[in-house]
Order: sequence, then structure tokens, then C-alpha cells
Amino acid sequence: MKKILLSTTLLVATAGVAAAEVTLSGSGRFGLDYAENRAVETQLAYRLRINVDAKFEADNGVTYGGRIRFQNSNGSTAAAFSPAMLYVEASGVRVEVGNSNTAFDSVALMYAPEIGFQERSFGDPLGSYYSFSSGPYDFAENNRVGIYAAYSVSGVNLKASLVQPDQAEANPGVTEQDEMSLAADYSNGQFTVAAAYVQNGLGIEDNDQTFVGVAYKFSDAGSVGLNYNDNGEIGGLEVGKSYTLYGNYTVNGITLAAYVADLDVDGADTAYGLGASYDLGGATLAGAIESGFLGETRADLGVRMSF
Amino acid sequence: MKKILLSTTLLVATAGVAAAEVTLSGSGRFGLDYAENRAVETQLAYRLRINVDAKFEADNGVTYGGRIRFQNSNGSTAAAFSPAMLYVEASGVRVEVGNSNTAFDSVALMYAPEIGFQERSFGDPLGSYYSFSSGPYDFAENNRVGIYAAYSVSGVNLKASLVQPDQAEANPGVTEQDEMSLAADYSNGQFTVAAAYVQNGLGIEDNDQTFVGVAYKFSDAGSVGLNYNDNGEIGGLEVGKSYTLYGNYTVNGITLAAYVADLDVDGADTAYGLGASYDLGGATLAGAIESGFLGETRADLGVRMSF
Amino acid sequence: MKKILLSTTLLVATAGVAAAEVTLSGSGRFGLDYAENRAVETQLAYRLRINVDAKFEADNGVTYGGRIRFQNSNGSTAAAFSPAMLYVEASGVRVEVGNSNTAFDSVALMYAPEIGFQERSFGDPLGSYYSFSSGPYDFAENNRVGIYAAYSVSGVNLKASLVQPDQAEANPGVTEQDEMSLAADYSNGQFTVAAAYVQNGLGIEDNDQTFVGVAYKFSDAGSVGLNYNDNGEIGGLEVGKSYTLYGNYTVNGITLAAYVADLDVDGADTAYGLGASYDLGGATLAGAIESGFLGETRADLGVRMSF
Repeated sequence: MKKILLSTTLLVATAGVAAAEVTLSGSGRFGLDYAENRAVETQLAYRLRINVDAKFEADNGVTYGGRIRFQNSNGSTAAAFSPAMLYVEASGVRVEVGNSNTAFDSVALMYAPEIGFQERSFGDPLGSYYSFSSGPYDFAENNRVGIYAAYSVSGVNLKASLVQPDQAEANPGVTEQDEMSLAADYSNGQFTVAAAYVQNGLGIEDNDQTFVGVAYKFSDAGSVGLNYNDNGEIGGLEVGKSYTLYGNYTVNGITLAAYVADLDVDGADTAYGLGASYDLGGATLAGAIESGFLGETRADLGVRMSF
Repeated sequence: MKKILLSTTLLVATAGVAAAEVTLSGSGRFGLDYAENRAVETQLAYRLRINVDAKFEADNGVTYGGRIRFQNSNGSTAAAFSPAMLYVEASGVRVEVGNSNTAFDSVALMYAPEIGFQERSFGDPLGSYYSFSSGPYDFAENNRVGIYAAYSVSGVNLKASLVQPDQAEANPGVTEQDEMSLAADYSNGQFTVAAAYVQNGLGIEDNDQTFVGVAYKFSDAGSVGLNYNDNGEIGGLEVGKSYTLYGNYTVNGITLAAYVADLDVDGADTAYGLGASYDLGGATLAGAIESGFLGETRADLGVRMSF
Repeated sequence: MKKILLSTTLLVATAGVAAAEVTLSGSGRFGLDYAENRAVETQLAYRLRINVDAKFEADNGVTYGGRIRFQNSNGSTAAAFSPAMLYVEASGVRVEVGNSNTAFDSVALMYAPEIGFQERSFGDPLGSYYSFSSGPYDFAENNRVGIYAAYSVSGVNLKASLVQPDQAEANPGVTEQDEMSLAADYSNGQFTVAAAYVQNGLGIEDNDQTFVGVAYKFSDAGSVGLNYNDNGEIGGLEVGKSYTLYGNYTVNGITLAAYVADLDVDGADTAYGLGASYDLGGATLAGAIESGFLGETRADLGVRMSF
């Protein structure tokens, strides 16, 4: 027997009536993934991700809710759950606890250079920092908790977060350094600017990182942007500063995208990527070819979709 | 794209038509938890619980179904599944198998003294017994099975259950003692009486426990009750008998609740707790401060909600 | 609060509009299971299975989607996830990747001799081959991937599949033999014929298996069939060839079913089974008694249902 979850908005009369719901959404992708010099260079790549979102809207307009995610990718033996995030939201302010998002990971433009059906880029940040965990925490991080606050008004988004890797101080091997991050971005539709900072990224002392991004939408068909990352340090060694220039242009339903990324580390090559995507009426056919900071080549071609 | 599960009752025409459905529901809570003398006394506490309920209503009015739960709380690395329970229900009789509920754990009033957003009380039973397992069984209890039967008529609820810790007798380290329990409760709306008995609680030989509870709702705003527990024995040592007097009263949307609990063990302090909760239009803001049988203090303050 | 997933088909206006949905379906069963000569011969048996199906229908009529399953049976400590399967479907062609179905396992008639509420038969194939995995892959098979293609037209179903036990060649202990299988079946409603072949079943070299089946529906009330299996070889030893004759007949709402199976291995007994099932208005009460190739007896009696 078939069960249908309505995929269009339902007008449920809720005048003055609190409403609760648990909904499922997600995304999928599959295709071919090529990486130079691995044992089998071309492999099947896929991922199916499902979000379980529970929500309660109180009479006074405040929303309480939570999320657990489960997903499976090639390379693991089964789908697995994330930890839970819970939140409260009212008047443009959202506070999350538990497996919360983080300010640094949530800033606008950070992942804009991504291409291919797997949405990746050598121009992504190279440092280490926390984010919403799509799978289980590491074994010793059972007491990890995050708090995240976001406020949006007139195109401005302000975010702050704190992650304690071991709030109970119960795991001797786990750092007691808290990660703190801040982010701000603004867009008027044409120009977007964004900046973020994280202190003790991933709970690593002095692993402080900075991000600045600007983007300009020069027409309905295209945009360009520039991202800067100071990628912090691990074990006293600087990861380096990176700069990524990127752009995209859509013509006849095909979007071409490209980026060039530089890293101020001795001997690092210039990384670059070229991608193309085609709207399949909601799903997207996408491919990319990229060259990394070590001159290594990777490429992909496949389909991605949202549910 | 957004998926909506209707959260209000839908009138689906089912005249003479068998109907199947899989539904999601659950509950969430988050806030601050204080416990005296632990490494970090005040910590974030949260839990997100989702029930997956499958149900088939046959033409003849008999309902067949099952439940699997998954949840995540602070202190663990990811959400996790429970084992499955299956049931059949007709004419007021419900029979569950597998990860079934148990009679002792399901009796009315047993958990009525609970307060705070985490709904706990030092006046809860102190003994060991089986219940529906919200997470995985213990490693060696892979062959644990329960059977539970309940019958309701005219305000009377009768329940019986049997749990075999190792129905296959395949795990040498697991007890072959079955837990058997009985429960009965009655309410006319104003008075409620309840009693339950469990033999070999948690499969521990001679770990027999008794519960008796009475409650009186003296007005729409308030009620009082008294619970008695003989908490059984473990390893030949009596856990002790406990008595809990509790009450609650609602005024201006705020519910105050309190309990006092005594334990007939040498040197045990009188335990007590005071809680307050406020209806947020469906969600609940709740807090409590409690003192235990060893004089230890714990407290919490947070929000809980149902989906 | 109760969430209802509509269990009847909803007419959602989607003229030219891409539609995405995540739906839950599944099946359940519980009852008594008897097996001769085990420590406890009669045990409770149950299983609850939930399929999470995500689907995106593009404007051009192409459907993209994926499935993750979770289930729990007696004998394990909790429900567990399968890996993910993703697919694309258009114009009668379906292609699956990841935890895909396989051609050999999907051929018509193969499991037609099954009886009892647990739907099993000694006349099932005795060989080893891959199929959609309802639980996690084996530990070392994290890089297992399958591809499956099916095409249906005018009652003819053609299927082909390929499973790589270790597409990354990263696990030294895992075979590099790929399983390849083909299947074809045809039915005009009255006659059904089916054949399937698998090479290197379960990635075991030279473990090639063949299936041929025919069935004849002699009236609305009954049908008969004959299945042949060459069950391949493991470690150089032939598993043997088996023949299964089966039939069923429905009278007054009760379906009687029986089979006889022969195996060309020295000393093997003739296996046989007798089953009865009764439609409970959608759910099914079913039982069976069977005798295996070693003369061992097993039986079951219980209820099964779909959601």
C-alpha cells in the first residue's frame, strides 16, 4: 500500500491552534567519481540523505523543534544517524543546541566555488572546524555540545556559535578548548559580502581562522566572487592562506562554472576547476574537472536531486 | 521542497476499506541540568525522540501494527534505534510482542511524582525491571522477547506481561529467569487507584517488587497522591521500601508540584523536590530542584514539547 | 499529537510541476516459530520493516529516487539501517546503483514456493548470491556497489546486474570477482515462464547458478509451478541441483499451498511443505509445516501485514 507525504504546501486551518509535525526531506546524488592515482581511479559515488524534522509551533508564534539526520554514501556499510539538534525560533532569532550548526560553517559564500554533482572545490576552506555533524560524533566526543544563535533582518544575517568538545570533562583524551565562531553576511540581491571568524577551530588551541567573501551578480545569468581564507594552524604549523576567484554563467539552460585558487604555501600549485550543470526539470545533471594544490586531478559526472 | 505530514486528524473515507499507514511522532526537550559534585555541575541536557508507528486496520476492525523508536540524548555520539514491538488490538484488548511494554512499567500513577523538564523524581521506583526499550538491548540480550496484554473497560485497566531475557537459551551469560508482571488501575476521574507486582524483575531471581498508588483530584486545579514501592532485592540485598507523597496545583497558568519521599534504609535522608511548569501554548517551560536520599541536590530548567 | 500519512492515493495537481516526496512503507509479521532439535524448539518470531523512499519526478517524466531500509527481527538487539540504493526511471527502464537489487534475486517465480507467515521454503534456491541488502553490508564490504537495470514491455521483464564486492580494491580480504547476473520472465496472466543466471555468485569464483521456472494458473482459485535450480559451487564443491513442484488452491477464503523439492545430492531426503493462509481483511494469518533435505521439521504460525 502506498503512503504519500504531500509535497506541496497544505493549507491547514490553524487559527490560534498549536500545530506539531514530523516531516522528512533530503537529497540524493549518484554518478562517477574520478581521482588520479588511487587504486581504482574511477568509482561509483552516491549519497542518500534524509532529514527528520520535528516541529512544534506554539500559539504565541514561537517554534520549537529538532532534527536528526541519517544518510549513506559509498564507502560505508550502512546508513547511520547523526546526533540530535534542538532549536527554538521566534521573531527572526533562532537558537540551536546539541548537534548545532556553527557560525563559521554557515556563513554565506563560503562554499559558492563548489562544482560537480558532488558539490566540492579545492577553493573550499582548508582548515579544521566544527559544523552540524551528518554522522555520529567521534567515539570520544559523546559529550560534545554546541550552541548556535542566528538573527536575520533586512538582508543582514548575524551568527554566533560555541562548541564544547567535552562538556562533562569526562573524556581524558578530549580537548577542553571550546570552539567559538562569529559570522556576518549581507546581500542586496546583487552584491553579497560575508565574513566569519573561528577561534580554536575543532577544539584545537590557537587554530583561529578567518573568512572574507564578496560576490557580484552582474546579470540574471551570471555572477563572480572572491573568497579569502586564513586557514588556521594545527600543531603549531600554519595551514596557509588561500584565495579563490570564481564565477558562473548560464546559457540555454546550461550553467558553466569555474574557479582558480591560490595557496601561499611553498611549492603549492594553483588549483582550478571547471564545471557544467544542466537543469533536468528539478534534478540536476552536473560534472566537473579539477586540479588541486599538488597538481592532482579529480573529476565527476552525475545527477543530484532534492526531496 | 517541503513535505508536510498533516498534524491534525484527517477524515479519510474508509468505509469497509482496510487502511495502512506509517506515521511519525515524538517528543523533544532541552535545557540546563545541574547535579551537585560532578566534574561539571551544570551541563546542557537534551533529547529528541521519534516514534515510527506502522499500523494496519483490517476490515473487521482489528488493528495490527508495530513500533520502532529512535532517539538521541546528550552524552551519546548519535541517535540509535530501539528493537521492534509488534501488536494486535481489538475490542479493548491489546497484545504486544517483541520489545513490548511491561505491566509493571505501565501502571497508572507510578511516575506521577515526576517534575522538571526532564520529568524525573527521587520518588520514582528504585528497583530494576524491564520496560519498552528506547535504545538497543544489551549486547547479550539479542534473544530477549516480551509479551504484554492489556484490557481496558469502564475506567479499569488490567495488564500482564512476561519477558524472557534469552528465549533461545543461546547466551550462557544471560539469566533464564523470566520476568512476570501484573498491573491494575482504576480511575473515576477524581479518584485513581493503582497496583502492580513484578516477579524476577529484570530477570533477577527473587527480585520481586510491589507498587501501590492512590491519587485524589480535589479540584480542576490540583491533586494529591501517595505511592508505595517495595523495591525488591538484588544479590540478596533488599533495595528497600519507599513512600512518596506528592501534589500539584495550577494557578494563573503556572503549575507548582512537590513531593516528599522516604526510604526505609538506615541513614537515608528524606528526599524531596519542588517543580514549576508553565504552558507555552503547547510546549512547556519547566524546572525543578530536588534533594535525594543521600542529600545530593539536582535541578533543571528547560523546555519540553511533543510532536 | 497525531501525525497521519495519508494511506490512500492523493490527487495532487502537478501539471508540469516537478514533485518530490519522501514516503514510508513497510511490513510486519509475528507469531510462533518451531524448529526441531534446537535448544528451545518453539520461539517467538517477529520482524518490523520500514522502507524510506525518496523520489523526485522531473518535468520531463523522469523519476529520480532512492531507498534506505531499516528493520528489526527477533535475535538482534536493535533495528538497523541498510545501505542506500539510488535509481533513475523513465519509459519502462529503471537503473539502480549502490545497494541495488540484482537480476538473479528479482526474477519472477523464484520464491513462489514460499509458505507460512515467514514466507520461506526448502524449495528456495540453495546457492549464494547478492541481493538488495536489508541490513548493513559485512564489515569488509564497505566498498561494495551494485548496478542493476530493468526493462519491462508487454509482460516481458528483462534484468541485468553487476555487483563489485570491493570497487575501491581497498580491502585485502575481499574478493575482486564481480557478480554478474541476467534474468528474463514473461507472463500472459495464465502462463508465466522465468529464467535467470548468475556468474560468480556472491563474488565467489566459478559459483555460477541457473534458475528456470514455469507456472500455470489453471483457474482464479489455483495455480501450479515447477522450479529448477543449479545452485552453483563453493570451494570447488557443487551445492547441487534442486527441483521444486508447488501449487496452491483457495477455497472459502482459505488458501492451501504445498511443495515438494528434490536435491540431487547423495542421501538428501525429499523436502516438502504444507501451508495454509487466511485473509484477515488485508492482513494474513498463515502457518506452515515443512520437512527439509535432512529430514528436519520446522513450522510456523502467525500474522503478516503490509503498511
